[in-house]
Amino acid sequence: MTDPIPDFYAVIPAGGIGSRLWPLSRADAPKFLHDLTGSGRSLLRATWDRLEPLAGADRIAVVTGRAHRAAVEGELPGIPDKNVFLESEPRDSTAAIGLAAAILARRNPEVIIGSFAADHVIRVPHLFEWAVRQAVATAREGYITTIGIQPSEPSVGFGYIKKGDELIVEGAPEAALVESFVEKPDLETAKTYFAERSYLWNAGMFITRADVLLSEIAANRPELHAGLLELAEAWDDREARGPVVDRVWPGLEKIAIDYSVAEPAAAKGRLAVIPGHFDWDDVGDFASLSKLNSGGRSENLAILGENARILADAATGIVVSNTPRVISVIGVKDIVVVDTADALLVTTTEHAQRVKGVVDALKLTGRGDVL
Amino acid sequence: MTDPIPDFYAVIPAGGIGSRLWPLSRADAPKFLHDLTGSGRSLLRATWDRLEPLAGADRIAVVTGRAHRAAVEGELPGIPDKNVFLESEPRDSTAAIGLAAAILARRNPEVIIGSFAADHVIRVPHLFEWAVRQAVATAREGYITTIGIQPSEPSVGFGYIKKGDELIVEGAPEAALVESFVEKPDLETAKTYFAERSYLWNAGMFITRADVLLSEIAANRPELHAGLLELAEAWDDREARGPVVDRVWPGLEKIAIDYSVAEPAAAKGRLAVIPGHFDWDDVGDFASLSKLNSGGRSENLAILGENARILADAATGIVVSNTPRVISVIGVKDIVVVDTADALLVTTTEHAQRVKGVVDALKLTGRGDVL
Repeated sequence: MTDPIPDFYAVIPAGGIGSRLWPLSRADAPKFLHDLTGSGRSLLRATWDRLEPLAGADRIAVVTGRAHRAAVEGELPGIPDKNVFLESEPRDSTAAIGLAAAILARRNPEVIIGSFAADHVIRVPHLFEWAVRQAVATAREGYITTIGIQPSEPSVGFGYIKKGDELIVEGAPEAALVESFVEKPDLETAKTYFAERSYLWNAGMFITRADVLLSEIAANRPELHAGLLELAEAWDDREARGPVVDRVWPGLEKIAIDYSVAEPAAAKGRLAVIPGHFDWDDVGDFASLSKLNSGGRSENLAILGENARILADAATGIVVSNTPRVISVIGVKDIVVVDTADALLVTTTEHAQRVKGVVDALKLTGRGDVL
Repeated sequence: MTDPIPDFYAVIPAGGIGSRLWPLSRADAPKFLHDLTGSGRSLLRATWDRLEPLAGADRIAVVTGRAHRAAVEGELPGIPDKNVFLESEPRDSTAAIGLAAAILARRNPEVIIGSFAADHVIRVPHLFEWAVRQAVATAREGYITTIGIQPSEPSVGFGYIKKGDELIVEGAPEAALVESFVEKPDLETAKTYFAERSYLWNAGMFITRADVLLSEIAANRPELHAGLLELAEAWDDREARGPVVDRVWPGLEKIAIDYSVAEPAAAKGRLAVIPGHFDWDDVGDFASLSKLNSGGRSENLAILGENARILADAATGIVVSNTPRVISVIGVKDIVVVDTADALLVTTTEHAQRVKGVVDALKLTGRGDVL
């Protein structure tokens, strides 16, 4: 299981600021460029490192905004120039992943792409690899395949995938059809999901033959599909690309791949799922970051930051230190302190979701310099 | 009542860092140099401004550490050079006030000195003036006189003065003897004190003829008294002063004036008190600072700092902003956030007293650079 998978190409959409992680995440320093686990690697780099054994360094593509090109190439010195797909503006995930599929399908019609977010945290890599290998095997059979995370607790923070009938696929003993997608549940419902074991967390991973994905987009969103083909046709022609991107890209429909592809495919029995048994987190807010970094012990104060100088007394929660300042936290429970050069956040894990509202308010009050 | 009081000299001991207000107060920026009320003036300057109508600008002396000379003169450009009494090292309040008394008594044997801390907050100046004028009248009769604050609530944060028999003093209709001093009480006791009205807060203000004060020191601490006289004799001789200070000052006994003078004088029926009806606070910690700056409304978030850029949502307590950073506080109750260039404190008003422990810990752990 150590050779790259034939015809497999990993695609990393690296977009999204991660507003709920402000002031750590910013327009010019989005979440995927940060080390959120104390590993010494950015989330993007960790994603690359996880995918390299599966795809090989020559077959990992990143879809990102023009503004992040230098940062992405800095994090991933091994990425071939031709595999950095730059968006002139964000057009949501169908455009981003569809563009990669269309370009890569022109380069290799047999290609199987796997799309993995740049800003998630995954632990236990060999279990991740095992899930991806099963997913690729299932994708070869023509299924659009997702990896659903086997829940470790009754979370109300994620959407769920209900697993349906099992599939007989060689090399994918755990493959099953997706019966349906379910929105974030309330706690009571989450508890029944957790007990049933047939509900998996929706981690937004899709593994599919590029041609199958494009057919599904064509069936559901023909104009978007036409735009993607036009872009792909010009893409590898240095001179043709620019004008076509300028003309076509801004007009592409903004729609999440969940709605343009996954749900319609599930309804047609064309969506498969592989259960993932690895630790996974989308690090959606500081509460999740706190949990991720406290070793699961709520009586701990998690500390994130290379040169953190923290003095804590009877404090729990998380301190993110991005400056050389001494930070003292005394007698505060479930606190969130995020210390950056030009902005400071103090809240609690309970109110972590409200951080996005602050970002909106800062925009409105003319303090966008710190966003 | 607008002319300076004849023979009256105000003395401002400006020592003490105010460790409970770290990281705002520091060794090189002690509490008295800060504006803690949002008035635009440091506490020292506000103390000067309060005393100037009573003593005149030529008759206010400051006793401070050598390290603070420039800062003190910067705050008080009107202070005559001869009225800045520099300590080579701190020797507690008997030495500080006794030195001023001894020097000023040599300059004018009739002098009445009033000692007022540099770092307290007082509101309603005309009531303060009225109390001081009564205290000076009482001091002329030979009493060492203190001003005790009429409590506005049953505080457990201050020591108390129990008022005894009334005194008949012209110009001081409220003068009374001090029956005794009482340490900080528990809440139950504080409530009975508050109900009785004969218990006043000990604000550490002393108004007395300099010769009377020196006699009291002589009676109780003869060696300390001898040292002070030797210092005073040399003081106004520029050449003699240095060697005498170097020889005598470091050997002076360290003792608070409460123990060397006030308690013994009270026991002998020589200590008088004038009730003060003005608002007073010693701003002992961030809880008291929060209260002081929130207009008494606990549902407020008090904000201190000239260029504060605060975004608060469902937050109460206090934010002290000493940097141009944006500070966002969300969903935290009774929070204390103190943001300075090299150190950040996050605690709650409930734990405000523990800040001193942090300062001690920082010393021990080699992070004294931020103290």
